[in-house]
Amino acid sequence: MLVVRPGKWTLVVISELRQGTRRFNQLRRAMGGVSQKSLTMTLRELERDGFVTRTAFATIPPRVDYALTEIGVELLHLADQWRAFALRNRDAVNEARDRFDASQPLIVIDEGDD
Amino acid sequence: MLVVRPGKWTLVVISELRQGTRRFNQLRRAMGGVSQKSLTMTLRELERDGFVTRTAFATIPPRVDYALTEIGVELLHLADQWRAFALRNRDAVNEARDRFDASQPLIVIDEGDD
Repeated sequence: MLVVRPGKWTLVVISELRQGTRRFNQLRRAMGGVSQKSLTMTLRELERDGFVTRTAFATIPPRVDYALTEIGVELLHLADQWRAFALRNRDAVNEARDRFDASQPLIVIDEGDD
Repeated sequence: MLVVRPGKWTLVVISELRQGTRRFNQLRRAMGGVSQKSLTMTLRELERDGFVTRTAFATIPPRVDYALTEIGVELLHLADQWRAFALRNRDAVNEARDRFDASQPLIVIDEGDD
């Protein structure tokens, strides 16, 4: 199930939809760096799993709205907790990394004298 | 940061360590299907990021214990919420998938008469 291992853009899309209904290009502009294909696939997966609704209007040009469902809002709250956890512990993680890296044996590459 | 996008085995290892200190092979036996290499890399990443401690004893054969740190326990609670969310919504997700798949146009492959 998607929610067990979210894709690269899954939680970013969920977070963007916290503002309410959004169109494809609104999402794409707000999500710097996402490709058309990645956004299309992520939205399709989220729609298929029931976290997002997709509403198409027969206007010219055609208009498509995306919005969170009830379980989509639940996923948003979980994503927020995850991000808050990451931010809260960012310094501790970086310090742990520095300690770990400093404790690793140095690998000396002998360039030789040729 | 690892915690932003956990690897395949990250949360499984964290969950196994809820029981307390564990050795490598205890973890490996409890985590059916994990390879030696994957478990080694996951533990190393968790140690480097400060979520797990690794304690080596100079016994023969050498003994290595793994345990959760404080922020490791925090990550465990978050992982539990994530799993509870997934279980709570599994039926809703499966029903959404059935509806989505049923709504997709059938692609008929014309085998031709040759």
